[in-house]
Order: sequence, then C-alpha cells, then structure tokens
Amino acid sequence: MPASYPAQLPSLDEDYYAQHAPFGAFASFTIGLVGGKGGFGQSLSGPANQNVYAGFRSSAQPAWQLLPFFTPPQSNETAFTEEAGTRQAPANVRSLRPADYTRKLGWASDTWQADGGRFSFSLLTPFAPAPDPARLGKAAARRCLAPLVCGWIEYDNRMGAAPVELMFGLGDPNRPLRPLNEHSPRLTGFASGGDFGYATRPARGVKLAQGFDVFAPKYHDYRGLLVIGGEAALVFTIPARQRRRFPLVLGFFQAGVVTSGLPAAYAYTRVFRDLGDVLAHGLAHHAYYARMASARDRELAGSRLDADQRFLLAQATHSYFGSTQLLWRAGRPLWVVNEGEYRMMNTFDLTVDHLFFELAWHPWAVRRTLDLFVSRYSYRDRVRTPDGRTVAGGLSFTHDMGVMNHFTAPGHSSYECDNLTSCFSHMTMEQLLNWVLCAVTYALQTGDLAWLRRQRRRLLTCAESLHRRDHPEPSRRDGVLKHDSARCGPHGAEITTYDSLDVSLGQARNNLYLAVKTLAAWVLLEQAFRRISLEPPARDARATADKLAATLTQKFETDTGFFPAVFENNNRARILPAVEGFIYPLYLGLKEAVDPAGRFARLLTQLRQHITQALQTGVCLDPVSGGWKLSSTSTNTWFSKIALAQYVIRQLFPEAIGETARAADRVHAGWQRRPGCGQHAMCDQIHSETGAACGSRYYPRGVTTFLWLRE
Amino acid sequence: MPASYPAQLPSLDEDYYAQHAPFGAFASFTIGLVGGKGGFGQSLSGPANQNVYAGFRSSAQPAWQLLPFFTPPQSNETAFTEEAGTRQAPANVRSLRPADYTRKLGWASDTWQADGGRFSFSLLTPFAPAPDPARLGKAAARRCLAPLVCGWIEYDNRMGAAPVELMFGLGDPNRPLRPLNEHSPRLTGFASGGDFGYATRPARGVKLAQGFDVFAPKYHDYRGLLVIGGEAALVFTIPARQRRRFPLVLGFFQAGVVTSGLPAAYAYTRVFRDLGDVLAHGLAHHAYYARMASARDRELAGSRLDADQRFLLAQATHSYFGSTQLLWRAGRPLWVVNEGEYRMMNTFDLTVDHLFFELAWHPWAVRRTLDLFVSRYSYRDRVRTPDGRTVAGGLSFTHDMGVMNHFTAPGHSSYECDNLTSCFSHMTMEQLLNWVLCAVTYALQTGDLAWLRRQRRRLLTCAESLHRRDHPEPSRRDGVLKHDSARCGPHGAEITTYDSLDVSLGQARNNLYLAVKTLAAWVLLEQAFRRISLEPPARDARATADKLAATLTQKFETDTGFFPAVFENNNRARILPAVEGFIYPLYLGLKEAVDPAGRFARLLTQLRQHITQALQTGVCLDPVSGGWKLSSTSTNTWFSKIALAQYVIRQLFPEAIGETARAADRVHAGWQRRPGCGQHAMCDQIHSETGAACGSRYYPRGVTTFLWLRE
Repeated sequence: MPASYPAQLPSLDEDYYAQHAPFGAFASFTIGLVGGKGGFGQSLSGPANQNVYAGFRSSAQPAWQLLPFFTPPQSNETAFTEEAGTRQAPANVRSLRPADYTRKLGWASDTWQADGGRFSFSLLTPFAPAPDPARLGKAAARRCLAPLVCGWIEYDNRMGAAPVELMFGLGDPNRPLRPLNEHSPRLTGFASGGDFGYATRPARGVKLAQGFDVFAPKYHDYRGLLVIGGEAALVFTIPARQRRRFPLVLGFFQAGVVTSGLPAAYAYTRVFRDLGDVLAHGLAHHAYYARMASARDRELAGSRLDADQRFLLAQATHSYFGSTQLLWRAGRPLWVVNEGEYRMMNTFDLTVDHLFFELAWHPWAVRRTLDLFVSRYSYRDRVRTPDGRTVAGGLSFTHDMGVMNHFTAPGHSSYECDNLTSCFSHMTMEQLLNWVLCAVTYALQTGDLAWLRRQRRRLLTCAESLHRRDHPEPSRRDGVLKHDSARCGPHGAEITTYDSLDVSLGQARNNLYLAVKTLAAWVLLEQAFRRISLEPPARDARATADKLAATLTQKFETDTGFFPAVFENNNRARILPAVEGFIYPLYLGLKEAVDPAGRFARLLTQLRQHITQALQTGVCLDPVSGGWKLSSTSTNTWFSKIALAQYVIRQLFPEAIGETARAADRVHAGWQRRPGCGQHAMCDQIHSETGAACGSRYYPRGVTTFLWLRE
Repeated sequence: MPASYPAQLPSLDEDYYAQHAPFGAFASFTIGLVGGKGGFGQSLSGPANQNVYAGFRSSAQPAWQLLPFFTPPQSNETAFTEEAGTRQAPANVRSLRPADYTRKLGWASDTWQADGGRFSFSLLTPFAPAPDPARLGKAAARRCLAPLVCGWIEYDNRMGAAPVELMFGLGDPNRPLRPLNEHSPRLTGFASGGDFGYATRPARGVKLAQGFDVFAPKYHDYRGLLVIGGEAALVFTIPARQRRRFPLVLGFFQAGVVTSGLPAAYAYTRVFRDLGDVLAHGLAHHAYYARMASARDRELAGSRLDADQRFLLAQATHSYFGSTQLLWRAGRPLWVVNEGEYRMMNTFDLTVDHLFFELAWHPWAVRRTLDLFVSRYSYRDRVRTPDGRTVAGGLSFTHDMGVMNHFTAPGHSSYECDNLTSCFSHMTMEQLLNWVLCAVTYALQTGDLAWLRRQRRRLLTCAESLHRRDHPEPSRRDGVLKHDSARCGPHGAEITTYDSLDVSLGQARNNLYLAVKTLAAWVLLEQAFRRISLEPPARDARATADKLAATLTQKFETDTGFFPAVFENNNRARILPAVEGFIYPLYLGLKEAVDPAGRFARLLTQLRQHITQALQTGVCLDPVSGGWKLSSTSTNTWFSKIALAQYVIRQLFPEAIGETARAADRVHAGWQRRPGCGQHAMCDQIHSETGAACGSRYYPRGVTTFLWLRE
C-alpha cells in the first residue's frame, strides 16, 4: 500500500451510500452500500437500480474482484433464446467484502482501495465558489455547470509479472446502453439514450465490453459488442511492470423543459449541446476538476474537525449537491434545492439551514430564492383571535414552491393543508421568520446593501406582520407568537419546521424554539433597518427584542432550571433548539446579542442552565445510544438540527458539553455510516435509540455541519 | 343490464392485460390483469407500475368497488409523519373479483361492466386509415397523431334513490401528480410533469381527490387536495334518477429529441404544444374518436370471425399500436415499430408480417421503412463457399435498425453477431427476401408503380444477390439458398426469423420454409419486372421460380408424404411454415401461382399432403394442448406465424384442417386470455403444452390475424 494512503480499517458495520452529484443537475451517481445497486439517478427519491461494476482481475485472481455494488446479474438472454438458455449468475465474479477494501470519503471524493492498495477507484464531486450564473461567460459556465461526476480507476502493477485488467461498468436489463464511439470518436464508453452515460479517453489498453453477461460475453457483433445486452463496461489492461490510472467521466443530461407550473430548463442546457458534449468536456477538463476536488479534500482534512465530524460534513455535502437544481427561465437562473426523498422544492425551512453553506459557495442562490418567495410564494393572511374572530394578519411566505418538478400556484405550497394541528398544517410564522433571517443574513454577510435597500418596504411589512401575530393590539404584545394564521382554518394551528416531532417542537404558538428565533429576527431587523437608515423601525425592533427577551426570562422555571418547550398546558418537555435562534447573531458576529454579560445576559444565563441540564442522559441525550435528542419527549431527532445546536452551544456555552455529549459525534457519525441511515445516503430524521432513519432520507439539510469549520 | 349489452360470463381464468395505445407514440395505458398494476407506460418492455382505480360506490355499497387493477395502496404518509403514522391499506375499498364484472374487448375498445350493468368503464383506442403524415394539414395531423387514449365512465342511476359516485384515478408514490386546472382551466384531471396525464371536462358533479390515501384523504389544501400525496383521482357524482357518462382522455407527451444515432422527435410534437394541448384536444374531439372506435368495433363484430378469432385480432391490434412510433427527422416522417419487450426497431422480419395490416391502414409506413432499409440499413457482403473461400455475395439488409430508441450505425443491426449458428446470428437471406417481398407487395397492392420504377436497379441487384446465395456459379443453381454470408464468420451460419426454434426452422441454409419464401420472392419479382417493363429479368425470375419449384418437389419424401424441414443431415422435422411463402401470391391475387392445377401443381399437391399430415396430433398439433406447433420438433410456437399459416392453409388446403386443428382457435385464444400470456399483453413465443409465453412478450406481430378478415 503506498505510504501516501494510510491504511484504514473500516468498522465492520461501515456501510452507506453516498450521492455523487454534479452541481445543480438534481442527479446523483449513488453507490457505496454493500450489496446495494445504484448508479445514475435523475431526480429520484433514493438510489437508482443499476448494478455497478468496479474492480479488477489478475492472473493471481482470475475471477473479477468487484466492489460490492451489485446484486447477482440477471441476464436478459433467455427472453430471446428461451429454448436454449437458462438464467444463471456469472461464475467468474467475486464480490469484495468490506474486509477486502478500504473506503475514504473526502469532502469532494470517495475512494476505494483493494488488493493491498494496488487497486484504486475514486469518484470526484468537485465544487468551488460559483459566481452568479447570470454573469458567467460561456467557457466559465461550462466549467461551473457541467452536469458530470469525475472519477478514475487505477492499478499499480509495477510489481506484477502479468497484465491486470480493470472494469468499470453498469448492468440494467431494462436500459440497454449504446456505445458512444458509434457517433463520438473522442469518447470511449456507453450511454443510455441521451440521458446519462460514462466515458474515458480512447487509449491503448481500453476496450468496450457488452452483452447479456459482461463478464463472459457470448455474443459479439462486428465490433465485439451486443447492444441488446443489458450490461456494458469499460475494460482497461495494465501491462506488467506498469502503474496506470484512467480517467472516468459520468454525465447526465436532460434536454428541454423539465418543470411545470413555471416551465424551465436546466441551466446547463444553455452551454452544453447534449450528453456527448458533457462527457467530452469532462474528459478535456478532467485535471481541472480533479484539482478542484483535491483542494476541497485538503481543506477538510486540514480542518480542526475530528474524523467523525469530517465524515458527517463530507457525507452531508454529497447529499446536498444531489438535491440541487439550477434551472433557467425567462433569461434568468432559477435555483431550487429539492427536499431529498420528498422532492419538495425550495422548502423554506431547509433554505434557512442551507444558508450558511450557500453563502460560502453560491450566495446568489439565496438571493434568487428570496426573490422568488417574494414574487410568487408570498401571501397576506388574517389571524385568528382566541374568541374565534379573524383580524388582519400580514405578509408571510409558503412552506415550499412545489414538488417533484412542479411549481405550485402562486401563494401556495405543496405541503400546507387546512384544519390540522400537526404535520401538513401551515407554517406561516416559521416562514415569515425564515424570510427575515435569510434576507438580513444574506445582505449583511455578502454586503449586498443595494439588495437590502430594495427590500425596505418588505422588511417593514415583515416587522408589522411579526407584531400582529404576537397580538393585534400593540399594548398586549410581549414578543411571543400567540395567534395562528386564519389559513389554518377554524380547527387548525400553525406548526414549525419540526412537524413530525411532538408538540414540544411541533406547535408554533407559544413555542420556546420559535420565540428565540423571533428574538433573533428582531435583532437582525434592528441591524438591517439601521444599515438602510430606518431609525424608528430600528429602535422598535430593538425594543421588541428586549421585550421578548424579558418575556422569555419570565418563562424560565426557577424550580427546575429549565425552560418549558411550550408556554401552554403545563408543558414540561425540554428542547435543544431553544438556542437555535442564536445562530444568526453568532454567524454575523453581532457580539452585543451574544455577550454573556450583555443585553440578553439574563436570558443567556438561563439558557446556559437549560442546556447544561438538557445535555444529560435521559433528558436530551438518548439513554440507549448516547446521541443528542432535540426534545426530551421525542425519540425522533434530526441530525441537521443537532449539528446546528452543537455549533451554537459550543460557541455560547462550551462548558455545558460534558463527556457524554461530546462523545456523541461518534454516535451521530455511526448512525449515518451504518445501513439504518446509510442505505438512504444522508438522513435527517433519526430514531435516537436505534439510529435508523424514520424520515427525511437522501436529504440535503445536513450541510449545517459546514458551520463547524468556523470553530 | 341494458338490453343493448348482452351478458357475458367470462371464463373463470380469463385474465389478461391489454395495451391501450395511441397511434405512433410508443406508449400504452396497460390494464386488465386481475390484481395487476399498470397505467401509463412510455417506451416500456411491459406494463407500467401504477395502481389504477376505476369503480363506483353507492349507498348500497359504501366501500369503493374497484376493478382489480391495483395492489393494496402503500401510502407514503409515514415518510413524512413517522412519529404519528402507521402504514395501512385503506379500509373502504373492495377489489372486484372477475365474477363481479364482465369485460368485452373490441377492436378499438375495452369495456368493463359491473353492478348489474349499471357501472361501465371503457377505454377507446380508435384507428383509421392514416394518410402519409408528410401530406397532412395541421388540423388533420392533430386528429391523426394525437398521443392519447379516449375512454368514458358511466353509471346508470335511473333506478337509484341516492347519489352514486364514480372514480378514475392513479396511485404511484414515486410520481406525485399535479392538478391540471392549476394552469389549464379547461381541464379537470392530473398529470405527471409534462409526460402523461388524464382529464375530463370541467362539469358539475366532477371533482378532484388527492392524498396519501385517495379513498379517505386526511389532508386538504386550499382546494381540498394534497399534491405531495401519491394518489389522485377524478370523482364523479351521479344524482339519483340519472344516468351519466363522463368522457376521459389519457394523454402522453415526450418533447424534443428522443432517439440517438438518428436524432428524431415524435411527429406529434410538430402539431401539439404540450400535454395540456393533447388533453384539451382529446376532450374537444372525444365524439370524433368515439365514433371512430365504434366503427372499428362494428367492423370486427360484423365480420365472419368467431369469438375467439375476434378476440385474437382485437388483442393483437392493441399490442401492435403500443409498439408503433412515428418520429420526425429532417422534415420527414420516420416510422418505427418497436419489437415488443425487446424494443428492437423496425425488425425486418416483423415488418414483413405487419405488412398486411399496415397496407390497409398506413401503407406509407411500409414504403418509408423500405426506403430507410435501403439508405441506411443495407450492405453488400461476400458469401462463404463450402471449401472455405469467400466470393462476391450481394445486397442485403440488416435484421433491425437499432434498439430502445437508439438507431445503430449504418449497415449494422443491434441483433446480429458473428460466428454463431443460432440466436443472434445474421439473417442475410431472410432480410433480402423480406425487402423483395415487402417492396413488391407494397407496390402492387397500392399501385405505387412510380416508387417501384425508382427501385428498378435495386430489384435487379436483389435478384442477383438471391442468385449468388444459391450458388456463385450459375450452372450449379437450383434455387435453394446454400451459401452463408461471410458476415457470419468462419464458424457461423445464417439463421431465419425463427431464431429461437430448433434447427428445423432456425437454420437458413437448405431450409424448406426459406426455400418456399424464396419461391414467392421470384414469383413477385417476375410480376414487378413485368410491370416496369424489364422483360429479360422477368423471364429469368419466372425460370428461377420454376427451377426452384422443381427442386423442392425433389425434396419430398414419397415414403412419409412429408417434406423435411431442412435438406441436410437427414432432418425429419415437419414444419407448418412450409407454406408461409404462399401468403404473398395469395394476398396479391396472383392466381397462377396458387392454382392447384397450375404451374406449381405438383408442389402444391405435395404441400397439401405435408400439411394434412402435419396437422395431426403429435406432429404439429400439440398433444397436450391441441394448439398448433410450428415445428414437430419444438414446443416453442409463435402465434403470429400460426395465424399466418392458418390463413394460407384455409385458402389453399381447407380440407387439411380437421376437427382438432379447427378447434385450435379456442386454444390459441385461451393462451392469450390466461395469465401465462395475458400478464404480458399479446405474446408471440409460446410453449405449446402450457400456453405460457417463453419470449416475445408485449408483442406487435400478432396483427397477422388481420388477414383473417379477408376470408
């Protein structure tokens, strides 16, 4: 094994898919689970269903030794030759077991090694700061938007006395592939129609194989292939005494309009003609992409994060890109992050969590999403008073913009329904806060005050809407949401993003999590108003924040030393997202708001006690697994929110984190590394005892871990 | 039950899918199998995977009574609400059993009735003579090419005292549907992106339902829907004392280039903007399409065919249209028939069998296919002599033009491989004959002598190629193919279309079936040369036919009264396709060639004896099932070829058909009606003992049954 690649002994149960995804193509080449199929998936809610063949054979091991990313191939030969054939699995193939290989997931790479390190296979998903696509020239746009994943396959045969062969291929009897060189002499590889394909450069020692059984093809056309066969592969020969690495490019392409409601095409279709163009570009710029992936890998490896934290950020980043979708409509970019397995579009309570990652890598995406929420997905409601009347409410925004490539009608999400008190109810207050927090964070972090100034009236309207949801009568306001949107209907109540948790986090009204988030919104609004010279509103925002902080301190239970999760019905649940709202002043460096001896000193002291007590086994540390639980009363915990809470708590109350709480990174990484989550790539909703996903699979939100790099 | 709709008692095991398919869209809405999912399938090798809900509920039966075209719905609710929900099948649904309903498959309709005939549901697949699309005006092109299936749903509540509800809907958790009226107020229904959808007209009593469980939707957005739910339906209310029939339109749409190799788009995309345009068109012209379907139904019902034969033609026609694909490229129509489950494109040995159907309904498709075989899928080969040399061969054509929307390179099929002696070998002689037979039959039947004249040199080249495959030395020719194409390679031999049968039909060289087909080719070539005033070639063709007939009579075994299937190796197999070649002179009314006392009298007398003896149990009648077997030595029998042989034999040797042979229509219909074939819609390759499909599923070739209407 080369010294540059230290041996890693994988834990016996390390076993997970990773989404290898281009930027903005809503597509993933997903592999990694032991015995799990995968391959090219376009806009799917989980891994695709292709056998993936990556491995080697040598004179010492004449059977193909393949990474275990396939199930026994099912030849479709007998459909043609019923009288003669019988269906049987190929004999000359061995599936490597986890003990036979190592895997190393980098920030922008996923690399497997076997055969004493001589065999290597790697998939690269480079990313870099992306300029606003509206301002990119064609060459830069092609580099930035190419819907492809790079990779390479290698064998170090320098000590070998006989040639060794490598294979990279796919098997899917339902989707026969076409050899690319029939029409593109620059490309050696295969494609499924114009939708996806893989290629390497034409070279000596590279050949194509295709048939019903790609490991022992019986039928050979004029080129030695069989295009009706469901299995195809690149086969590389490495002569004795040589070490060779071959580039791979895996490409996707979806032409034309792909969405309804707002009909739009992929942005990459403006600069790429077709799949062949994408694959040729990837091969021509392979070194560029490999350098970019390597730079990201080095950044993560050189960070202060430990191995578990590095894995969590790397895996989260892989799944995030798989949900990204950069469209083009009416001459402008249209940015969507799809919501993992649910495929809801630009779910606002994910946008607010992707914010920190996106501001670092593609901040224009945040601005464009905020603008679309304003222009199409905002509404004005009425609110319901306790005596059953409705009175004027104010501006808010929808939960999402649609589902599965369908943009819903203006002012309506795909998710929100009426007359409900938990899942699928309206999130009016939550999304109003999310717009305010995203908008101000975007503007202050990027310095785009011109955009902020254009939001002048909107920010005032948002402030007024926040006030009215507290109480329609100014004199009775204490800063806490107490009125539900009339959109909920007479029998409904607003919920928060924590929809599937119990009432401790699910109910919006009088909710601790949402109240602290409201506090953050007022703190940020004060900053925003001040920057755009709206002094009276700035003073009002400051006063409201102070009032709300005072209200909150009154909710503290001096007897228990906890805050209740909900200021109603004697609720005694304990929640970690009590501190979630503090992420915004922390992130923006608003020191006054997070100063332990500053204006919110009393509240912060109480929160320190709350968090210190919550981070005890049996409260918000799961007694079975040791993992963090968002709520003491629910075993449904969300990793992305744990990661966010970890960052806030480590910044504000580092002493609250005892040994068990600190050791939980290993627990959380273990959840994602094992099949309970790993069979769905990155997962968010997790059963805190078992570590198995119970929702939010194949999910983008884990990039809240990106915050950890600031520590 | 209305008197106009006579009661039918289905056989207990009648159970089959039918493909409800537009003309040329390579798409089917497939349902019919008891307990089988199906729905909208685009370019698939079998039925799609959607639950289809069609049924009713009344105050007498408050649970939904649905035709059994679904499996217990799997709500995707728990993916969202893990903490609260549990997955369970809906309680208020009953799947009708076959005894509860009747089904009547017409030529262009498929109609189910239940509840004493009060409930009716029908899918219409109208077809009519289609003019060459290159010459259609836009309005006519829209009528002809609309990628849609019509239907209706009805309840006769005239005797009812309470309202009754009807449902038509789909369930597929992986493909949430969007309500069409969000953007098309003229349409009430649902669509999956821009790909497929269904609609009815906005009307009183029509509403939408959508949710995780469409039978008891728990969540209601501002319109009462839930667009993230995987189930959606139209619900119709029929007041007491009324009878109401509601139109349905089921549409498909694929925009842009859909093929590779020869990039082409669907012809319908020239005259339809998108799916909404298709659905609105279908509703506006519903009566037109219903009349057309009704005309076809009446034609078949009024024919002399018995019930089994009518079923076979109707089922075959349904599957044929499901494989049709009318593309547009470089300003011209590009016609493809895909090969059922194999999805090979314009397989020539299917074209030659579709010929009779296509000449009646869209003869230009035959001409365009022949032209494309000439311009892109022809080649000149060498042939191999017994001493291992190769000598000049001649012109022939490839087996097919590609597979799964990929046009292969010029001069090459997707199927043919080298150095083989059975399946996947070359079919050089078979396809040469197919071009000659299709070309002359097309020209003589349609009277398109201008086209025939343009083929003047090609016909001469084909004749020369036929001669040289007999023997390179003219003096040693006897009319029978004796030389394999050098394309087969040193270890290969040509095969016939009967690739998966044993040598009796599989080997091309010295094959009885192919020799009689060659005779037909010379008979037709004589006619063609005469029509275009090429007298010496006409005389040569006539002489060659006579010589070949004389050769064949020498092969007759006077001791057994049979022809051997292959004139080599003491082959003693007996085959029914011995007479297949006579279809062409029969079809074209070339009386001289089929006159029992005419120029081929001796051959016909021998063939009569051969066929009479072959149509005995244990020879070419299966002793277990009573069905026709193509070969005495194989239990793999092909229905399309049986149908063709039946027609020829009933025309030429009606007395050869004894009682068992005559009764076999019921056997053959039984095969297709039962799940052994019926679970794949129309099937062609069938095990003659069990009646189970062993290949060629979801297959278009059964339209050879169309010949029966000439009887």
